Amino acid sequence: MLANHPTPPGVTQTQLAAALAAFASSIGDDKVATDAQALADFQDPYQVPGEAMNVPSAVVSVSSVEDVQAIVRIAGEHQIPLWPISRGKNNGYGGAAPWVRGAVMVSFRNMKGIEIDEELGYALVEPGVSWFDLHDAIEAGGHNLVASIVDIGWGGVVSNTLEHGLTYMPYSIDQASHCGFEVVLPDGDLYRTGSGGMTNNPVWPLYKRGLGPTTTELFMQSNFGIVTKMGYWLMPKPEIYMPLWLTMWDDAQMPTVVDALRELMLNGTIDMRPQFANTLIMASMLSARSDWYDGDGPIPEEVIDHIAEELGIGRWNMRFALYGDEAVVDHNFAKLKARFEQIPSVEIVGAKHTKDEWESLPNPHERVQIGVPSLDLYKMAGWSGGDEGGHVDFSPVIPLSAAHAKKAQDLFKSMCADAGLDYLGGMLPINARSTTFINVIPFDTKNPDQVHAAYEHARAMVIRAGKLGYGEYRAHPYFADAAADQFDFNDHAQRRLNETLKDALDPNGIIAPGKSGIWGRRLREAGYPLT
Amino acid sequence: MLANHPTPPGVTQTQLAAALAAFASSIGDDKVATDAQALADFQDPYQVPGEAMNVPSAVVSVSSVEDVQAIVRIAGEHQIPLWPISRGKNNGYGGAAPWVRGAVMVSFRNMKGIEIDEELGYALVEPGVSWFDLHDAIEAGGHNLVASIVDIGWGGVVSNTLEHGLTYMPYSIDQASHCGFEVVLPDGDLYRTGSGGMTNNPVWPLYKRGLGPTTTELFMQSNFGIVTKMGYWLMPKPEIYMPLWLTMWDDAQMPTVVDALRELMLNGTIDMRPQFANTLIMASMLSARSDWYDGDGPIPEEVIDHIAEELGIGRWNMRFALYGDEAVVDHNFAKLKARFEQIPSVEIVGAKHTKDEWESLPNPHERVQIGVPSLDLYKMAGWSGGDEGGHVDFSPVIPLSAAHAKKAQDLFKSMCADAGLDYLGGMLPINARSTTFINVIPFDTKNPDQVHAAYEHARAMVIRAGKLGYGEYRAHPYFADAAADQFDFNDHAQRRLNETLKDALDPNGIIAPGKSGIWGRRLREAGYPLT
Repeated sequence: MLANHPTPPGVTQTQLAAALAAFASSIGDDKVATDAQALADFQDPYQVPGEAMNVPSAVVSVSSVEDVQAIVRIAGEHQIPLWPISRGKNNGYGGAAPWVRGAVMVSFRNMKGIEIDEELGYALVEPGVSWFDLHDAIEAGGHNLVASIVDIGWGGVVSNTLEHGLTYMPYSIDQASHCGFEVVLPDGDLYRTGSGGMTNNPVWPLYKRGLGPTTTELFMQSNFGIVTKMGYWLMPKPEIYMPLWLTMWDDAQMPTVVDALRELMLNGTIDMRPQFANTLIMASMLSARSDWYDGDGPIPEEVIDHIAEELGIGRWNMRFALYGDEAVVDHNFAKLKARFEQIPSVEIVGAKHTKDEWESLPNPHERVQIGVPSLDLYKMAGWSGGDEGGHVDFSPVIPLSAAHAKKAQDLFKSMCADAGLDYLGGMLPINARSTTFINVIPFDTKNPDQVHAAYEHARAMVIRAGKLGYGEYRAHPYFADAAADQFDFNDHAQRRLNETLKDALDPNGIIAPGKSGIWGRRLREAGYPLT
Repeated sequence: MLANHPTPPGVTQTQLAAALAAFASSIGDDKVATDAQALADFQDPYQVPGEAMNVPSAVVSVSSVEDVQAIVRIAGEHQIPLWPISRGKNNGYGGAAPWVRGAVMVSFRNMKGIEIDEELGYALVEPGVSWFDLHDAIEAGGHNLVASIVDIGWGGVVSNTLEHGLTYMPYSIDQASHCGFEVVLPDGDLYRTGSGGMTNNPVWPLYKRGLGPTTTELFMQSNFGIVTKMGYWLMPKPEIYMPLWLTMWDDAQMPTVVDALRELMLNGTIDMRPQFANTLIMASMLSARSDWYDGDGPIPEEVIDHIAEELGIGRWNMRFALYGDEAVVDHNFAKLKARFEQIPSVEIVGAKHTKDEWESLPNPHERVQIGVPSLDLYKMAGWSGGDEGGHVDFSPVIPLSAAHAKKAQDLFKSMCADAGLDYLGGMLPINARSTTFINVIPFDTKNPDQVHAAYEHARAMVIRAGKLGYGEYRAHPYFADAAADQFDFNDHAQRRLNETLKDALDPNGIIAPGKSGIWGRRLREAGYPLT
């Protein structure tokens, strides 16, 4: 082992070596790696090269629940922090890097079990299952089912769910398609949530609760355990899928569109997650900034108008869809088109497709909304810096109303302008009543000043938004503690409860320390979070 | 104070008196009562008169969150168990009685705050708000909204929600209409779940989560805190409400109807909670057993056939409904009628109503499904014993499939027959994939042998169902420990975690000891649960 190999807080090289030897002796030499190549995947690609401090010391590639239990027990004895990672890249939220230097990655890439039940419409998946894997298993089995998926298919079904990640089909509303977790607790005990608490209970993946309190959501965005299996509901294929596009040419109409969207979601006309994005977000998926402008500071309004016209996307653009029987889709399409087109400068188009057409729709956006994954939408990062472009995302949740959308945009836009940055904004509603307001902050990783400014800008936005009562739905590690700090009701009652739970469940503080601003007692006493 | 006044476990009359004096001195003499009249409401009306051991020592009538915090802190100092009760009768599940003798009731009848937001479609309610109160506040405000409610309007919105209680409209699916709790923790600290963790966050009642783990469901069917406020989503009034009735004359077709129902719920045609009940459940709401039969043992099949014909309800009967635009309702009605009527002996009828008609529909079942509460359905208890009739409910959750419905019914029916009891069975689906299978066991409270046999029968069913992997969705105190005991995965991992959480949050074990089979350390060490 190299002398300058990263070690966890308070752990010496010798102690780390002893722990790694114990891991290897328990689950097999071949599952424990410390070489640079094995660790290369577990870095944040959007840091300035060579600058990152949060690098892992080793990766353990588990292949069974028993492996996870063994690793957790040994880590507890040796006080080695573990960072579970299921599949994904998590770009924009810190990548696959651990949040604490020297943590041992627990990689699930070899746990890819999938069981599908067509009659009851669900899959049981292990954490190594990607969106591609799930889609392919459904198709290979010839099931009349479809999974709600994310934009970029390489991510993990379990990890995206655990992070409150957003998908797009009807089951994505409230991010509630999951049902039942199997969890390895910090003491190595095996636990199942909800009805899974009963041996052989067939409603574990069907009913979200059991008898008594339900802990499923306690293991999301958290560090109270490691999820090793999850139920995920699958929707029967609808008779008709109709992808829709709303184009809005007058930038000032955005709040009015938000009110119409809420109305149509509340009355059930639109029953899925739209993606409502401004010109620059859409353009970042289709082109590079340098194609349009190479000045410093934010792109001027007239250039944005030019991009909007050239790409035919408008100043704001909504990707959405209808699903169902043709008669119902026709009724709802006429209703929403009439409602949205009351708003000046708004146009709606769409086309109906039956299931034989879905896999080969030419537009990847239209495939995503019917559960066909690809990597075709992985272009946003190239906006600034090309192949070495990166981005950091700031994503508070606001009410889905004109007043809040305007208030939030006014703040975000002026802060971007003050920082000399382009404003890439978009909304992905949580449900009919609330929406994430995503701000993508792109940068060129070759330009350290730009990278540092982008992260500082994101952190400043988190704090300013917090003063308005808007909280992050998901936080980048760079500002996770600041984001958690905004949750200040009754002098941070949530933090106190989270720490009570953390210390009761994980007294050695080994599972993902720092996740969502929750530090175990041992690291709190050692001065974490570091400032 | 009377010498034989009930006292909590390990607490003397003198210690209890000191605690009650401290309550009175903190929040006011007029809010603390120990007289028989004040305590009369907090008994289980379905016990044999004079036999019940689980009687309260006092009732504290709080009128603010600060009152609750003060009471909880004092109770902790004096080790007095508290039993919160918001409004309801909870008949069939132990009534409003505490589960531990001598507990102090915390009554919320004076906390009846309601705030309604029409634009975003929700109410913020305090625990004293009944279904009548909520309905009346919506109507008084002229809001274009409707609340999904229970069958009997006197219950509390918060307490029903906390118990995983079932309502019937579209928002009732998965019992997920609530969003955001305010909770007084066992140490008296004030806490808000989800986005309520941030001061003035407007999405507290709109987005079910915040940043980090979500604890909302941790406070349901639990004793980890006392909920003092809750967000509850309200649905915009639909253009058309169409109550529907399915009548099935051939008892053997029940499983086939279950499969058709799952198919229609999975594809979204039916989007609410049907009530699918056998002849005797329906008859118990319309008549008394003695109207039909006065022999011992279960009512013979030919008498059930006779009841089915006389009341026109069939051998199984489904109450359900469609909501939405008229064109969509018409399409879905034609679709479900064609599907169900493929099944021999099944008939479907229904009629469309616009909102001016809903409040005055003559059938209370049809009013309930559109949010108009009444007490008209409170007749089930009169099946055996008339005005002194009672019932105990056994309610496991099973997959919504023909095979499971048949297997469960075969077991429940044969156990009822063995016990000489009528079989009153019905299904209230949780969602498209799972259903509660409710067994109502009626008895005459004047007949102690019948009462004892009914409770023993229910407990035996809980244990037999547990062996099949079917768990209770809600448990009567008489068999709550037995019901919790069925959750045995990995040598009762759920119980271990529940106890770890209970002991961390409530080291004095004062909040609702025994609830859902969770006892604090102090009472566990004192030998609870008593056997």
